[in-house]
Amino acid sequence: MVSSDAGATGNSLDELCINTIRFLSIDAVEKAKSGHPGTPMGAAAMAYVLWDRFLKHNPLDSKWPDRDRFVLSAGHASMLLYSLLYLTGYDLSLDDLKSFRTWGSKTPGHPEYHAAPGIETTTGPLGQGFANAVGMAIAERWLAETYNRPGFEINNHFTYTIVSDGDLEEGVSSEAASLAGTLKLGKLVALYDDNNISIEGNTSIAFNEDVAERFRGYGWHVIGPIDGMNPASVDAAIRVGQAETARPTLIVCKTTIGYGSPGKAGTGAAHGEPLGAEEIALARKTLGWNYEPFVVPEDALKHTRQALERGKQLQQKWQEKFEAYRKAFPEEARRLEESLKGNLPEGWDSGLADLFKGQEKPMATREASGKVLNAVAGKIYYLIGGSADLAPSTKTNLKDQGDFSPSNYKGRNMHFGVREHAMGSVSSGMALHGGLIPYTGTFLIFYDYMRPPVRLAAMMGLRVIYVYTHDSIGLGQDGPTHQPIEQIVGLRAVPNLVTLRPADANETTEAWKVALQRRNGPTALILSRQNLPVLDRTKFAPASGVSRGGYVLWDAAAKPDVILIGTGSELHIALEAGKRLAEKKVNARVVSLASWELFDAQPVEYRNSVLPPGINKRISVEAASPLGWERYVGTEGLIMGISHFGASAPGEVIYEKFGLTPDRMVSEALRLVGTV
Amino acid sequence: MVSSDAGATGNSLDELCINTIRFLSIDAVEKAKSGHPGTPMGAAAMAYVLWDRFLKHNPLDSKWPDRDRFVLSAGHASMLLYSLLYLTGYDLSLDDLKSFRTWGSKTPGHPEYHAAPGIETTTGPLGQGFANAVGMAIAERWLAETYNRPGFEINNHFTYTIVSDGDLEEGVSSEAASLAGTLKLGKLVALYDDNNISIEGNTSIAFNEDVAERFRGYGWHVIGPIDGMNPASVDAAIRVGQAETARPTLIVCKTTIGYGSPGKAGTGAAHGEPLGAEEIALARKTLGWNYEPFVVPEDALKHTRQALERGKQLQQKWQEKFEAYRKAFPEEARRLEESLKGNLPEGWDSGLADLFKGQEKPMATREASGKVLNAVAGKIYYLIGGSADLAPSTKTNLKDQGDFSPSNYKGRNMHFGVREHAMGSVSSGMALHGGLIPYTGTFLIFYDYMRPPVRLAAMMGLRVIYVYTHDSIGLGQDGPTHQPIEQIVGLRAVPNLVTLRPADANETTEAWKVALQRRNGPTALILSRQNLPVLDRTKFAPASGVSRGGYVLWDAAAKPDVILIGTGSELHIALEAGKRLAEKKVNARVVSLASWELFDAQPVEYRNSVLPPGINKRISVEAASPLGWERYVGTEGLIMGISHFGASAPGEVIYEKFGLTPDRMVSEALRLVGTV
Repeated sequence: MVSSDAGATGNSLDELCINTIRFLSIDAVEKAKSGHPGTPMGAAAMAYVLWDRFLKHNPLDSKWPDRDRFVLSAGHASMLLYSLLYLTGYDLSLDDLKSFRTWGSKTPGHPEYHAAPGIETTTGPLGQGFANAVGMAIAERWLAETYNRPGFEINNHFTYTIVSDGDLEEGVSSEAASLAGTLKLGKLVALYDDNNISIEGNTSIAFNEDVAERFRGYGWHVIGPIDGMNPASVDAAIRVGQAETARPTLIVCKTTIGYGSPGKAGTGAAHGEPLGAEEIALARKTLGWNYEPFVVPEDALKHTRQALERGKQLQQKWQEKFEAYRKAFPEEARRLEESLKGNLPEGWDSGLADLFKGQEKPMATREASGKVLNAVAGKIYYLIGGSADLAPSTKTNLKDQGDFSPSNYKGRNMHFGVREHAMGSVSSGMALHGGLIPYTGTFLIFYDYMRPPVRLAAMMGLRVIYVYTHDSIGLGQDGPTHQPIEQIVGLRAVPNLVTLRPADANETTEAWKVALQRRNGPTALILSRQNLPVLDRTKFAPASGVSRGGYVLWDAAAKPDVILIGTGSELHIALEAGKRLAEKKVNARVVSLASWELFDAQPVEYRNSVLPPGINKRISVEAASPLGWERYVGTEGLIMGISHFGASAPGEVIYEKFGLTPDRMVSEALRLVGTV
Repeated sequence: MVSSDAGATGNSLDELCINTIRFLSIDAVEKAKSGHPGTPMGAAAMAYVLWDRFLKHNPLDSKWPDRDRFVLSAGHASMLLYSLLYLTGYDLSLDDLKSFRTWGSKTPGHPEYHAAPGIETTTGPLGQGFANAVGMAIAERWLAETYNRPGFEINNHFTYTIVSDGDLEEGVSSEAASLAGTLKLGKLVALYDDNNISIEGNTSIAFNEDVAERFRGYGWHVIGPIDGMNPASVDAAIRVGQAETARPTLIVCKTTIGYGSPGKAGTGAAHGEPLGAEEIALARKTLGWNYEPFVVPEDALKHTRQALERGKQLQQKWQEKFEAYRKAFPEEARRLEESLKGNLPEGWDSGLADLFKGQEKPMATREASGKVLNAVAGKIYYLIGGSADLAPSTKTNLKDQGDFSPSNYKGRNMHFGVREHAMGSVSSGMALHGGLIPYTGTFLIFYDYMRPPVRLAAMMGLRVIYVYTHDSIGLGQDGPTHQPIEQIVGLRAVPNLVTLRPADANETTEAWKVALQRRNGPTALILSRQNLPVLDRTKFAPASGVSRGGYVLWDAAAKPDVILIGTGSELHIALEAGKRLAEKKVNARVVSLASWELFDAQPVEYRNSVLPPGINKRISVEAASPLGWERYVGTEGLIMGISHFGASAPGEVIYEKFGLTPDRMVSEALRLVGTV
C-alpha cells in the first residue's frame, strides 16, 4: 500500500515541495536537538496536497471567518504545520523555524494557539485536536443554518484534521467521532496518518483494531486505505470526502513514519528524537536532497507562496458576497459580526437584577443558574451549549431554542451524550471557531472526565463556561462515587480558570455575569443540587460582591472577634453560626469567598478590608478538601472541610455526620476566641 | 425485538424470580425516595439468567479466587446487584435492602467494593466497571498462563459485565474494548443493556452509532441484537459467548427501561427517580405482582438460594483440585497463594540499599525508578504493569519478562496503548482480581486523562502504583501542553492516595518501598525527566526519611535561621541556596518534603522536630502550583512555585525565566531574615 518512493508522483514540483517540508522539519528538530521528525516526514505529502489544492485560507488574514479550519491533532508533528505556515506565506519566517522549541519563539514544541497566526488550536495531548475539529464543524453548521440565506452561503467551509494512531487510541476521539457521526457533520474531513508505529513499537501490540470498521460504526464515510504518500491518491480521496455531505469523512492514509530515513523509517526511533547527523546524511541521499539545512528551493517557495494570491482573491470574493448580504440582510449581518467579535449584545443583562426579587423560597443554585441562563439566552443569541446527558439535572436546557441536530442545525441545545471529555474538547472547538459562546453542563464529579480540555481552554484563553452542579456531599444518596471532594481545589489550581461557587440565587446571577463577561479564559460555575436559602439582601451585603471574589456578607458588630468564611452551600452554615455566636456575645464577621481567583486578584487594600490581617481567629467551612484554605485562615485558624471520601445517605445526614454544622462552627469559634 | 411480555418465557418460575428482582428494586428505591429503578426492571432477566445458570460463585465465600467475576458497570442499577446478592444467599439481608441509600448501610446508592460481600468493584461513574472487567480478564489470563499446569486449570473463570448505553458512550470503554480486542480476551463476556434511553431522552439524539459494528472493529465477537428480556434468548447467547474463546464477546440485549411500568417504560422518566406509588400500583397490575413491598415469594427464594449448595460444591471441587495441584507443584501453589494474599516475598528488598552506592553521576529519578523496578521485579514475581505507550520514556519496562500478549499471557509487560484512562481502570481491575500488583506508567501531565480511575482506586483502597514521569517544566521543550502545573496538588488532594516526589536516586528507592508495602491504597510516584544529582548520604541525612514523608536533609548549624523546603528536583535548589546562605552567615535548614500525606500522618512531635513552630521564616520551592504550601511555610513564609502555564524551551532556561533558582531563594531568604 505504501509507495516505495513518495516522490514518484509524476510531478517533480510536488516532490520538491513535499521534500522541502520534510527537510525543514528534519533540520529544525536537529537544530533544537529535540522534537519529532518522523511524523512530518511521513505525513508531508498528505498535508501538502491538502494545503496546496484544497485548503481555503488567506495567509495574510488568519482570522478570515469563513476560512477552512485545519487542525493538526498530532501536535507533536508541529514542524509539519510550521513548515506549511512558512511556505504559504503566514507571518512566520525562516528564522522562526530556526528558533523551534526555544524560549519565546513563535514555534514551540507543540502548536500553541496564540504563538503564530494560522495555528487554529493548541494540540499535543492526543485526541484533543480531533475533538476540537468536531467542535469547529459544529460551529460552522450552526452559523450556516442560522445566518446563511438563499444565494448567500456566508458560512460554508470545511474543517480538516490530521490525526495519528495515538489520537484514535484516546477515548476522547471515540466520543467525538460518535457525536460527529450522530450529527452527520458532512463538512468534516479527517486524514488518518496510519503509520502503524507508536512509541513502544508496532501498533499491533496495543491497537490491533480495524479503525475503518469502527468509524463506519460511528456513521462515518470511510475512504481507503489509500497510499498516503502519493499525492494523486490523497487528492482523489479528499475530493471524494468533500463530495460526501451527509457524513463526516475519514481517509485512511497509509504512510511510513520517518519516510526517507533508511535507518529509522517505519520504526519508533523516528518518532521523538532528532535523526542525528549521520542519519540525516543518509536521508538526503535517499530523497535526493542536495540543499543545505534550512535552504528552501526557490521553485518550491514560489509555488507554495501562490497561496497568498489565491487566498487574497478568495477572501475578496467572500467579502464582496458579504457586503451584498449585508445590504439584503442588514440585521443578520450585524448580528453575525457582533457575535464574531464576541461582543455581548446591548442590554444583555437587563432584567437580571430583578430575577430573584421576592424569591423567598429556598432554591438550589443549579435551579437559579437555569433561570439566569434562560434569562440571558434570549438576548445573547449566540450562547449555545448543553450537557453530557444530564440537562434535566444540570438545568442547562434553553427553553424554546430547539436541539442542535442534523435536522435542525440552528438549534441551540447540544446533546453531547454521556461524553464529558468530548464535551469539553468540542466546546473548545466551538469557541475557537468563533461566532458563538459555548457552555457545558455536568455534575462536578465528572469534571474529572474532562480535565484535559478544561486545562487547554484555560491555556488558550477561551471563553467557555462550564456548569458543574451536584457540587458536594449535599447531593446525598448517590454516594461517594458522585460526591466531589478534591474537584473544587482542582479547578482552583488550573491557571487562568476562574472558579465560582455562589451561595444563593443572587450570587448565581453574579457568577454568570462574571462568566459571560470574561473574554480571556474559561469559567467554572459550581452549583448545588440541594435547595439553599435566598439571602435577603436588604439585611445582608449585595451579591455583587461576588465579582470581587469575596466580600463581607454580614458583621455582627463593628469589630469582629472571629471571621467565618464560607462558599456556596456552606456560607449558610457560617451565617447561622455567626448569628448564634452573636447571642453568645461573640462578634463574628461572615465572609462569602465565592472565587479565590477573583479575590486574590483584588488590590491588597480590598483583601485586607475583607480579611483584616489583625484578626487571626478565622474558620472556613467548605464541604470539600481542606487543601489550600490555609491561605485565608492562616496557621492559627481552623479549616472545616472533608479529607476523606463521602457517603451514601441523605445530604443533611452526611453534613451532620461529617461535622459540617453551625453547632460545630460555633463551638470551634468559642474555642478559638478562648470563651470555652 | 423486545418481547411484549418478558414473563412469556415458558417458565413461570423464571418469571417469578425476574419479577422478584424487579420489585425488590422498585420497593427499595421507593422506600429510599431516591435511586434508579428503570435499569433493574429492564435488565432483570439478563442478570437473572446469568446468575442462575452460568455464574460460578459461592455466596458463602465471596473471595474464592477462581470464582467468575461479575461487574455491574451500570452502577446506578445497584439494586439489581443487591437483589441478586440477597436472593443467592450472600451476607446481605432483606433489612439491608430496606436500608438502601441510608447512612452506614451495606447498600449504598452505587455499589461500593467494601460495602457488602459479592460487590467486585465500585461502580457508578460510567465506563469504569467495563474497563475494570477488562483488567480482571487480563489478570485471569495471566494467572492461568503462569500457574496452570496440564490437568490443573486452577485459574479458569469468566468475567461478565453488564454495560449500559452510557458506559459505551464514555471514551474509557472504547479504550478498554480496543485493548481487550487486541489481547483476544476470550473469557470476557459483556452484556449490553441496549435500551435506547438515556437521561436526556432517546439515545438517537446523541448516540446514533452502530455499536455492534464498532465492536467488531475492535476485534470482538458480537452476538445479537437479541431479546434481552427473554431468558431463553439470553441463555443461548451466553452459551455462544462462552464457546468463543479467541475473542471477547459482546451480547447486544434489546431491553425496555422501566419494563412493567405502563407510564414510564421506555422513557427517561424511569431512569433516575422512584416510580411513585401510583405508577408502582400500575406496574404491579401489569406484571401480575400481588406481593406486598419487600415480600419475596417463597418459590423464588428457594430457587435462587440453590446457588448456595451449587457454590459450595463448585468451590469444594476446585479446592480438591487445588490440593492435588499443591502436591504436584508445591512451589507454584505456594507462590500462587502468597500472591493471592498479596504478601511480598521474603527478601523482596534485598540489594535495594546498595543499588545506587557509588553512583556519582547525576541520574533522572525516572531512570532510578526503572532500576529499582527491575531490581525488585525478579523477586516480586507478581508485579506486572506497563505504560500508555511511553515505556521507553517512563522506564517502566521489565527486562526479560516478556510482553503480555495473546501469544504470551504470562508476559509481565503490559502495552496499554495511548490510553491512560483505560490503563488506570484496567489496572484497578487487575488489583481487584487479586494475585498481582499492577503498576502503570505515563507522563505526569496525562494523569489528567486518568483521574477517574485513580480516584476510584483510592476509594477502594487498591494497591496500584502509578509511575508519573516528566514531572515539571524540567521536561523542557515539549512545552506547556506537557508541563504539569496543577497535577501534583491534584494528586495530593485525592483522599487515601499517597503521592511521593523523590529528589534523587536513593529517595526513589525509598519511594518505591513505600509504594510496594502500601496495601490499603494506591501510590503515585512523581519523577523527573532530567538528571538530578545523587546526594552523598555520608554528608546528608539518609534517604530513609522519605518513609516519614519529610525529613531534615541538612542543617547549616544547630539553630536554623530559616527553613528551606523542597521536593523532587527542586530540593537541589534549596540545598544549593542553603550552602550559599551559610557563606553569608545565615543558617539554613533544608527539608525534603517528598510526601505531604506521609508527613501529615506523623506524630506532631516528629513534624515539629522537622518544622519547629518557632521558626517562621520558611521558603518552599516546587516547580508546580503554589496551592497548599501555606500549610508548611505559614503566612510569614514564601512559596516559590508557578501559578501560570509553562513554556517551550530547554528546562534549565525555563527554571531561570520562572525564577526558580538558588539565587532567588538566597535573596528571598536574606530578605526574610532581615539581612537585606
